[in-house]
Amino acid sequence: MKTIYLDHVATNPLLPEVLDAMLPYLKEDYGNPLSLYPPGIKAREAIEHARESTADLINAKAKEIIFTASGAESNNFALKGIAYALQNKGKHLIVSKIEHHSILNSARFLEKAGFAVTYLPVDNHGLVDPAAVEKAITKETILISIIHASPEIGTIQPIREISAIARGRDILFHTDSVASAGNIPVDVQDLNVDLMTFAAHQFYGPKGAAALYIREGTRIVPLIYGGIQEGGRRAGTENVPAIVGMGRAAEITKKDLQKRIDHVRTLRDKIISNTLKTDKVILTGHPEKRLPGHASFVVEYIEGEAMLLLLSAKGIYSASGSACSSKALKSSPVLISIGVPVHLAQGSVVFTLGEETTEEDINYFNETFPQIISRLREISPYSKGWEETEDPTCTAKK
Amino acid sequence: MKTIYLDHVATNPLLPEVLDAMLPYLKEDYGNPLSLYPPGIKAREAIEHARESTADLINAKAKEIIFTASGAESNNFALKGIAYALQNKGKHLIVSKIEHHSILNSARFLEKAGFAVTYLPVDNHGLVDPAAVEKAITKETILISIIHASPEIGTIQPIREISAIARGRDILFHTDSVASAGNIPVDVQDLNVDLMTFAAHQFYGPKGAAALYIREGTRIVPLIYGGIQEGGRRAGTENVPAIVGMGRAAEITKKDLQKRIDHVRTLRDKIISNTLKTDKVILTGHPEKRLPGHASFVVEYIEGEAMLLLLSAKGIYSASGSACSSKALKSSPVLISIGVPVHLAQGSVVFTLGEETTEEDINYFNETFPQIISRLREISPYSKGWEETEDPTCTAKK
Repeated sequence: MKTIYLDHVATNPLLPEVLDAMLPYLKEDYGNPLSLYPPGIKAREAIEHARESTADLINAKAKEIIFTASGAESNNFALKGIAYALQNKGKHLIVSKIEHHSILNSARFLEKAGFAVTYLPVDNHGLVDPAAVEKAITKETILISIIHASPEIGTIQPIREISAIARGRDILFHTDSVASAGNIPVDVQDLNVDLMTFAAHQFYGPKGAAALYIREGTRIVPLIYGGIQEGGRRAGTENVPAIVGMGRAAEITKKDLQKRIDHVRTLRDKIISNTLKTDKVILTGHPEKRLPGHASFVVEYIEGEAMLLLLSAKGIYSASGSACSSKALKSSPVLISIGVPVHLAQGSVVFTLGEETTEEDINYFNETFPQIISRLREISPYSKGWEETEDPTCTAKK
Repeated sequence: MKTIYLDHVATNPLLPEVLDAMLPYLKEDYGNPLSLYPPGIKAREAIEHARESTADLINAKAKEIIFTASGAESNNFALKGIAYALQNKGKHLIVSKIEHHSILNSARFLEKAGFAVTYLPVDNHGLVDPAAVEKAITKETILISIIHASPEIGTIQPIREISAIARGRDILFHTDSVASAGNIPVDVQDLNVDLMTFAAHQFYGPKGAAALYIREGTRIVPLIYGGIQEGGRRAGTENVPAIVGMGRAAEITKKDLQKRIDHVRTLRDKIISNTLKTDKVILTGHPEKRLPGHASFVVEYIEGEAMLLLLSAKGIYSASGSACSSKALKSSPVLISIGVPVHLAQGSVVFTLGEETTEEDINYFNETFPQIISRLREISPYSKGWEETEDPTCTAKK
């Protein structure tokens, strides 16, 4: 059976050119980059080359890139590192309610450590209101962190407007660009951000390589202490092959980005227009301000997991939108935040496209998905309306 | 020119079988392990299989293994995670003065956060005295962390004696086994430890994969918050290929360990006996209680870096013992702790052997190294004795 991978927001295949770039460092060039002999020097030079390529993707300087092992690590590093560095200036942070768990849970950790955090609501499209950010600022505010694009509903935030407010008040601004960097143009100068998280496996690079952009001159406390790697800001023997892969993926992505965007947007629009022909299916997130390869829906009266399993049986691999809902059948905090009732949030499903997705794939998808919805609705005891039961374990904090 | 790699404590080549195990996950099996469709399930199963193999290497249960990205991350996680989890019980930690920087600098971070830390001295062989551990315990002590084997001087600590003291006082015990696990038998039941750090690239596995053993039932606060990976204790999309590689390397290491030990010990002894024939060369670390593939010396009146460069020119790749001394020509805190005078600590050099090291390699080394020492002494202005100058930036805290 042909399989169609429509979960590019979860992870992506490695490009063959990226693996080719990594292989020497998985074989003969295994030296530790801190070493003084030729193989070590070669590894160090490879890392510095990758740093330049990675910086170039987001229009940063090489020295502003700190390599980490995951977007989650970068997000923890940004939030806690800035909080600890600036705690004598103030102890208040602002985030949105639809941040990734690595931000939300870091924020909750900081609350236990004596910081105050404002969790900003979003509108029905998932947008943060810049005016609400402005209003939430206190003289204690040291950091604002707003996700660039939601992996769950695809909405792209007005980062420029929010970062301008932060800049005007001399407050640092971080954005989690894991779902956006490599998928839309992301320029740290244009976005005017001080810190930015992004991850290689979101743009056909390897798992295990990510970065935190830290604007030159920004003080931050390390998350991982130890040796002098990454200028003393992130210790640990460098994962040389993965870092090299991130650099190569960044180079290719910079070159191919517009082509990729045009490709996935066209196909994505075919999914959206076809899927919305089915009764009681809602597009989640913003209709225009969304990731180009991202289509997300709530299908009323059906469980997301049931759809995923039947789609998978037809060779179509997709997600229900969040690890929380995928693995535990709980309602997504993001969907609750955009006003989807709890009983409907169970019916979430997300399709994310990649450069290898073909028109044929999407035609097959567009035939298959409505049939699956019909079939599930026929057999669903809920199709005449679920009870509204609040699930306390995984709903958004209001 | 043939090259001889004698820096296995810095990092190791990947075994070809390990790379073979990793490659499918760098190619077609790229699914995110949290996904519900077959490629995701396959990745998840591969991780769980690797967890069992990794646990098996140290006689732990699979569920007691948390995968991380580096030994430094595991050490930060252990120290801060236990400190935060038990801060209501007490706020005192005990470590040795010769811990890795990832422990020492985490301890200093915790001091700033209101914890008290005792830094235990070591004797001239680098051994921690268990009686000193006992004496340092207060009713506030929540964690003792002692490095299992020093990467710099090779000394293996009396972990069993120290962990018994901790157990008797109901205090958690962590050991940093980065330099030991995979190089000597390491059994968490026999060593009676509650937490243990180890890293795959120390036993022919990949960079980017390490673990923290956490005894079942031990409470710990995450270092990296986010999704539900690793039972909610370490977030971030799993680096599937690296984790798979760690598991495969652990399997092979378990099988080959005794053979490897016998091999490197024999060759290591040839290095030690030959090198000590040269005048004014001192073996650092314990003469018997040391890593089997580890030979470390202080060569009086010569700079370590000069030796490294001339050795490298002869195709022999080695280290001066610590990133700090290698990169910045500073005196090593470990050497100062074992009583090496500052002016001699500059002459540190460390040779660490691996399973691919041959007798021929060591014969060549044994011919070459004494010649290099002679040559450097001839041209050294210091060969009649250096001034004792205290370097404030990189000496051990007394």
